[in-house]
Amino acid sequence: MSPSQRPADAGPESALYQEVQHFYGRQMRYLDEARAVEWSRTFTEDGVFTANAHPQPSTGRAEIAAAARKAADQLAEQGIQRRHWLGMLQVDEQADGTVRARTYALIVSTPRGGKAAVHLSCSCDDLLVRQADGNLLVKHRTVERDDLRTGQ
Amino acid sequence: MSPSQRPADAGPESALYQEVQHFYGRQMRYLDEARAVEWSRTFTEDGVFTANAHPQPSTGRAEIAAAARKAADQLAEQGIQRRHWLGMLQVDEQADGTVRARTYALIVSTPRGGKAAVHLSCSCDDLLVRQADGNLLVKHRTVERDDLRTGQ
Amino acid sequence: MSPSQRPADAGPESALYQEVQHFYGRQMRYLDEARAVEWSRTFTEDGVFTANAHPQPSTGRAEIAAAARKAADQLAEQGIQRRHWLGMLQVDEQADGTVRARTYALIVSTPRGGKAAVHLSCSCDDLLVRQADGNLLVKHRTVERDDLRTGQ
Repeated sequence: MSPSQRPADAGPESALYQEVQHFYGRQMRYLDEARAVEWSRTFTEDGVFTANAHPQPSTGRAEIAAAARKAADQLAEQGIQRRHWLGMLQVDEQADGTVRARTYALIVSTPRGGKAAVHLSCSCDDLLVRQADGNLLVKHRTVERDDLRTGQ
Repeated sequence: MSPSQRPADAGPESALYQEVQHFYGRQMRYLDEARAVEWSRTFTEDGVFTANAHPQPSTGRAEIAAAARKAADQLAEQGIQRRHWLGMLQVDEQADGTVRARTYALIVSTPRGGKAAVHLSCSCDDLLVRQADGNLLVKHRTVERDDLRTGQ
Repeated sequence: MSPSQRPADAGPESALYQEVQHFYGRQMRYLDEARAVEWSRTFTEDGVFTANAHPQPSTGRAEIAAAARKAADQLAEQGIQRRHWLGMLQVDEQADGTVRARTYALIVSTPRGGKAAVHLSCSCDDLLVRQADGNLLVKHRTVERDDLRTGQ
């Protein structure tokens, strides 16, 4: 079997994997460019963002946008450019047609005139759902900061 | 020629590139989640793992699993979450049907309650072979830590 | 709509996204391996490399190769291995058939016998054009170091 001979479902799986990569490329750029409303629209209307660093989840686009806006304002005041890298993507289609997408997240911070450095390392676990217009959106995101993990 | 008009072999090459990315997403997660046996099964039965940081290669799944287990136990004791990022993938099909896959490796460490930081930067050079079931496995891996390089 | 049912143009877009990833995997390896001439040939004959860290752009392959050669020689003298990671790719086909490709760039440096660390965080904004032989080349690259940004 040559490398190009993959199982028959390779095509769609391949397209989905790339689609999720591209989705994240666009999505995290919204966050890092302080485009809070566009960021919130990459979540479903009832989207949930939960994190082990947050006392409670953000629920719905208004809360998700407000949290992003607040974080962006603080970074702007401090003169910090932050970049969220998602990588090492693993994509699993669920039986119900939703998509589980797991990534590593590396957050890099650079103060104006200062030194770039790793800010945080996290895992990111998404439930993505396809909309009527064909686009994927995040229905549920769980971000776990590695420094705040409890068990092993 | 428009961007979508690529050479006729674009499809299979594209699928292979994505497949290797996905393979690494799954594989390195096994390592970072201390799933040593599953990690070892991403290598062929006679797989070889060689590194400029190791006095000698690990050969075969039992040795590869044992090395991963030992490293995972040490990290658990120290309360360190490690993440292996592979990126900047270059894939080359060989004439014999095997696949040479080269990546950059960035290893990020986070102590519990501490600060995430780059641990090591390496290159990773794999020989991948397709199995009868259609899956790719690592037959030979060479990891070179950048800090231990000798020549330039 | 199942995850595999994407708009009809998913195939070409998917192939292009992967193609640009692979192009960057090869291209940045030329830079990091001090292969200055091969690096310069990933730009068009009249390619332009502009950066907020440079007083003026490099224009044409000879200037681009010379700049890479000079940087590589300095790193070799200092015994530093540098790695350029491009990620979080966003690809947009323009109406004229050119491709705008935006990435985050993370530059990692490792001194021989020393500690790997993030050197710089940047954005990279490319205009790619397809050649008669079917390959993509960089016609214009803009690199912005995050530490040198002025406005917000």
